[in-house]
Order: sequence, then C-alpha cells, then structure tokens
Amino acid sequence: MGAKAEKTKEKIRAAAYELFAAKGFKQVTMSDLCEQTGLSRGGLYRYYSGTGEIFSEILTEEYAVEDRIRTGERARVILDDMLRVIMQEISDREHSLSLAIYEYASLGNEALFTRITGRAKARWEALIRYGMETDGFQKVNPAQAADLILYYYQGLRMWSRVIPLGEAEAEFYVKTVRQMLLGGAPDYGAYENTI
Amino acid sequence: MGAKAEKTKEKIRAAAYELFAAKGFKQVTMSDLCEQTGLSRGGLYRYYSGTGEIFSEILTEEYAVEDRIRTGERARVILDDMLRVIMQEISDREHSLSLAIYEYASLGNEALFTRITGRAKARWEALIRYGMETDGFQKVNPAQAADLILYYYQGLRMWSRVIPLGEAEAEFYVKTVRQMLLGGAPDYGAYENTI
Repeated sequence: MGAKAEKTKEKIRAAAYELFAAKGFKQVTMSDLCEQTGLSRGGLYRYYSGTGEIFSEILTEEYAVEDRIRTGERARVILDDMLRVIMQEISDREHSLSLAIYEYASLGNEALFTRITGRAKARWEALIRYGMETDGFQKVNPAQAADLILYYYQGLRMWSRVIPLGEAEAEFYVKTVRQMLLGGAPDYGAYENTI
Repeated sequence: MGAKAEKTKEKIRAAAYELFAAKGFKQVTMSDLCEQTGLSRGGLYRYYSGTGEIFSEILTEEYAVEDRIRTGERARVILDDMLRVIMQEISDREHSLSLAIYEYASLGNEALFTRITGRAKARWEALIRYGMETDGFQKVNPAQAADLILYYYQGLRMWSRVIPLGEAEAEFYVKTVRQMLLGGAPDYGAYENTI
C-alpha cells in the first residue's frame, strides 16, 4: 500500500477513534465515518470492510517496546515514555474506549481481546526483565508486576467513564509503578500527615 | 421495618443482583423482578420504587470495616477477610456488575459513584492506617495504597467481562496487595525462571 493510502487509513482510524470513544462501538456506522472523514461510501469501503475491522486495528496498535529493547535503549527511558502515554490516557476521560471495548467484546470478539491482553503482558514482561538485567530494576516477578501495571491501568481507564478521575489518580499510578520497578521509599509523608 | 420486611428486601436485592449481572442495568424491569421473586407488582413496589433504588442499595452495601476496627480486631485478620471476598468476586465472572454500573453511571448517577468510591477509599485508608499503627503493616502512603487496591480490583473485575480471567490473576492481586502492606520478598523465582 502506498504512503497516500496509509495516510487515508490513519485519518479514518483517527476519526473512528473519536466516534467510538464518544458513542461506544455499536452506535457507530460506516455512514458516520463517511460524514466525519468526507470520504464517499465507495472510498471508505476501499480501505475497510466495516467498523469492526477499524476498531480491531485501533486496538492492536502497539508501543514498539520490543524494537526499542533490541536497539539497546535504556529500560528506564522506555519505561518513562510508556508511563507518560498512560498518564495522558488516564487523564483524558473523553477518549476512553472502554465502553466501546465492552460492547465489542460482548459481540463475541473474545479471541481478539485475549490476544491483545497476552501481547500487552508479554511486552511489559519483556521490558521488566530487560530492566532487571541491564538497568537496575528491582527484582520482581515479571508476570505479577505486568498484571498490576495492566489491570490497575484498566481499572482507572474504565472507572474514569463512571466518575471523573483527576491528575491525582494518574500520579499515584505512575508513582506506584515506578516504586515497584525502580525502588525508592514510598513518600507517604508528602501526602498525609497521619502516622 | 420488621424482620420479615427486611428479609423480603434482601430476597429482592439478591434476585436483582443476578439479573443486573446477567443483563446490565437498563434491560432489567420491575416486571422481571416480580417474575423472579414471585412477588406481585403491588408487593414489589411496597419495598422499592424502581430498579434504580434497588441497584443503588446493592452498590452501597459495605464491608463493616470501621466497626471491626473499633472493636479492636487485628488488622491482618480484617485484611485477609476483605481479600478473600475480593478474590471470590474476581473469579466469579458471571456475577460482575460492571456492565450494569457503566449503564447506570451513564444515566447521570455520577454523584452516587463518587460517594461510593470515596467511602471505599476511606475504608481502605482507615484499615491501612490502623494496620500501620497496631499490626506492623509496612509504611506506605495510605491514599496511594488504597488507589492501587481499588482500581487494580476494578480493572480485573471489569476486564473479566471482556475475557475470562483465571485464578492466576486473582492470586497475583492478593499477593501484590499483601506484599505491599505486609512486606516479604517478591517470590519471583516461584513463577518464572528467567533471570
């Protein structure tokens, strides 16, 4: 596929992302996407066969962690980049895909989510192992640590559709993950003065 | 209210719980509940004015943590009891209210969820402080630790509607919370043999 086609697909995915975040999965139609992107029906279908294909492509976009490990970047730098993205996502309640994910999963796409979860886990475990081997990460159980990172994040992301979560929750998340992987005293005194 | 009325209300809430877990919030009607409980329409409305009242009562049922602290029970015992309940809930995918919570929140019940979240947080913070003062809990920031406990749990609970989660995820959760509060080496060697 040429660069122009790639660009059009990106534009479609970006428009679809907004719609899925706002309306969930089921309520978004290919017609909505024509309207949003300015593409004709024929033009849109040239790139995607339906909203399911678009959504599943959005969900499988990945951080290039393995590539960065291979090129020998420092584990702490990769970690901080990942945490920065996550922090933005948590604070950005309007763009949570959680509701759409629920709906799409309930339509029988469990295999897709099993694959996505497995890959995300493998990515985090690889980074944690790499950090332990090369960059002084704390000795943790990589699978256990990856679970905390992923499900704690999912909880924040999903719960932010239920009540507004602020910067504070995102900061605690980042702090907890960094303390777990990099160590350092939990600065409980900075927040509370109760003990 | 007499003991008999209290018992009927409990029966209604138990039946409603099953329905909300299975169908979400919006799709459950008072008629469904009559059918499920065997109560007449008039009988049901004597206790509850609608499904919203029932759902909100289910959501605000609470662990009696503060009472147990007041009577001087050991913090570790209370902690283990709470973790046992949570572990059952995580493994019991069919009974997750997550979808119903989403739907109910989207109907404009944010204030209720803000209150519930605040109370759950206060309860955990109280237990953590009590444990630090009286039962050798690790020195942590209580608010930060409570966030991990609550949102990591929410993530597991909600994600278990998307893909099946097993005992393993529940065990990692309990292990992580116990290590954070009670200390002890992360037994990474028991799971993986990679470093």
